[in-house]
Amino acid sequence: MSTIPGPITTQGLNESQAQRFIQNPILTPKQIMPSSPDMVIECLLNPGAFTFKGKIGLLLRVAERPVQLEGTITCPIFDEAGSLKILSFNHSDPDLDLSDARLIAHQGITYLSTISHLRLVWSDDGVNFYEPETPLILRGKGKLETFGIEDCRVAFIDGRYYLTYTQVSENGVGVGMMSTDDWVTMQSHGMIIPPHNKDCALFEEKINGLYYCLHRPSGVDLGGNFIWLASSPDLVNWGNHTCIARTRPGMWDGTRIGAGCSPIKTAEGWLEIYHGATSNHRYCLGALLLDLNDPSKVIARSQTPIMQPQELYETQGFFGEVIFTNGHIVNGDQLTVYYGAADEVICAAQFSTSQILASLK
Amino acid sequence: MSTIPGPITTQGLNESQAQRFIQNPILTPKQIMPSSPDMVIECLLNPGAFTFKGKIGLLLRVAERPVQLEGTITCPIFDEAGSLKILSFNHSDPDLDLSDARLIAHQGITYLSTISHLRLVWSDDGVNFYEPETPLILRGKGKLETFGIEDCRVAFIDGRYYLTYTQVSENGVGVGMMSTDDWVTMQSHGMIIPPHNKDCALFEEKINGLYYCLHRPSGVDLGGNFIWLASSPDLVNWGNHTCIARTRPGMWDGTRIGAGCSPIKTAEGWLEIYHGATSNHRYCLGALLLDLNDPSKVIARSQTPIMQPQELYETQGFFGEVIFTNGHIVNGDQLTVYYGAADEVICAAQFSTSQILASLK
Repeated sequence: MSTIPGPITTQGLNESQAQRFIQNPILTPKQIMPSSPDMVIECLLNPGAFTFKGKIGLLLRVAERPVQLEGTITCPIFDEAGSLKILSFNHSDPDLDLSDARLIAHQGITYLSTISHLRLVWSDDGVNFYEPETPLILRGKGKLETFGIEDCRVAFIDGRYYLTYTQVSENGVGVGMMSTDDWVTMQSHGMIIPPHNKDCALFEEKINGLYYCLHRPSGVDLGGNFIWLASSPDLVNWGNHTCIARTRPGMWDGTRIGAGCSPIKTAEGWLEIYHGATSNHRYCLGALLLDLNDPSKVIARSQTPIMQPQELYETQGFFGEVIFTNGHIVNGDQLTVYYGAADEVICAAQFSTSQILASLK
Repeated sequence: MSTIPGPITTQGLNESQAQRFIQNPILTPKQIMPSSPDMVIECLLNPGAFTFKGKIGLLLRVAERPVQLEGTITCPIFDEAGSLKILSFNHSDPDLDLSDARLIAHQGITYLSTISHLRLVWSDDGVNFYEPETPLILRGKGKLETFGIEDCRVAFIDGRYYLTYTQVSENGVGVGMMSTDDWVTMQSHGMIIPPHNKDCALFEEKINGLYYCLHRPSGVDLGGNFIWLASSPDLVNWGNHTCIARTRPGMWDGTRIGAGCSPIKTAEGWLEIYHGATSNHRYCLGALLLDLNDPSKVIARSQTPIMQPQELYETQGFFGEVIFTNGHIVNGDQLTVYYGAADEVICAAQFSTSQILASLK
């Protein structure tokens, strides 16, 4: 895909590899208009990334909440038709649990404190982004998206863009898919992976006649937050699910792991940038190398992160100590990773793919 | 399918409909040989049911544990090659939690107290069952079945038997599928629905060109133990997942619900017998009626159970207050439900399909 000419910096390199953009954060909530006047954007998170007609596109996750009135806390949900409804709680209600900024727990029911939609922005240089004249806003629709849609991966397969994203509702959390070839008209393909699931990254070409994806189910009692592989004849229907990577207790990826975006095809294998988190919810990035011919075989895996929260915009924010990516642009050996920092702002960093591969040996 | 001539009784009818077999329980652990001399059968559970060459077949879930030595508690797992390994804990270990008879919890890791395989038994009358001369024992195989396989549904589709069952391992709990046309040679189709999932029942014919199944994902934070529907072009790859029935707080199916076996086609719709449980783990049976042409539409649902634990063999046992079915035989209006009682013995009861339909009005 196309070159990113944006200036970069070598500041703050604990890791040998990540070169953060000097302009970081490149997008903050103030730079985007809320979807309606009575909403406030709390966070920009975890963009999908792609190129289209010489431009770089990001599909941002925009997390909003209603303007909060004194003494109450409100939380937004969509009804099944896609209209916004507001639930309101008294701030002094002893049954209210706000200990996790991302959640509102009340009398045994959990709501999200914000509701997310997806918003398209374009850039000519990979650094400065702007909304199109007619904004593209993808909101939750139907009973599987009443709590919004989140963390969209964009894959380019057979001349078409496939968007895999998290569908959130009171029915559960699963992976939905849309596709487009013009970024105007979107086709929905429904929920492709059932609850509880997130972090679905499509391989951008068939392997031995089948499509593949990585996904992240969550276990109940047995299992955990592990990375799984599945195959498909048509991208819509999936089978042959198998676990390929588990969490590593005591390590940087000890409690939960999940795929970033599409694996990068290299001579040595499929290179997947993934996130790992500790039980303290510290999110770092690492790499998995999968066999080119049989991606269920893990050839290598990062012992230490290739990138971890260290800049102030990564360690402090809506939910600090988080680096989370589900979008990147590949240009030869240059890998530009777009990421959500502290669940609040959008940043970018560049890597050398060959350096990441070397770090896995 | 063929008639069941076994004598029945009308004893103990709290419900208007269930006619329990007077021979209940029809199978107990003592009647089956352990799979090896150092194992003990703790429970027979939740059989799949089908007809084949004029016989009725049950595919039992046989739950075994190693012979327990004084002062220790042992739990069995299969290695990936399918060989049995035994883990041993000291009974006085303060980190050991045995409060749920089905589980062994130790230092944050949960094991199953028993390991299950599937065992075929035949009957000429639907009441008296015997193993074939060469027993058919289906054990866990590979890394997705190290903790065994459970609760098999048998569907007859296009002249072939399709077995959907629970695959259990440290990687998670999902739905596997096998198929056969002779009950000797089994073909594996891998995991068709990823974790956390159970209770997958296939529709026995296509609807508008697609196969359908019911399945039961479990939510984490959001969602719950609800019944979902999915479609497939080929029975192996599944998509278009959607939630069709949720638990009803405070009712008999307030905490978890899951499909029994294949829906029964009636003039009024697809009739699905399902289980519902309360937060106290009391499992009853009820019915769902789904639109013939669009099974995502629920036409009706039992307000009260069509069958609930009341006989001693249902209220007391390895895990009492449980009636759980995933196998039945349909013969005109006569529906013979085979079920696991108290997670320990196999029982059967007959219903009139038209009476169940009438109860839904």
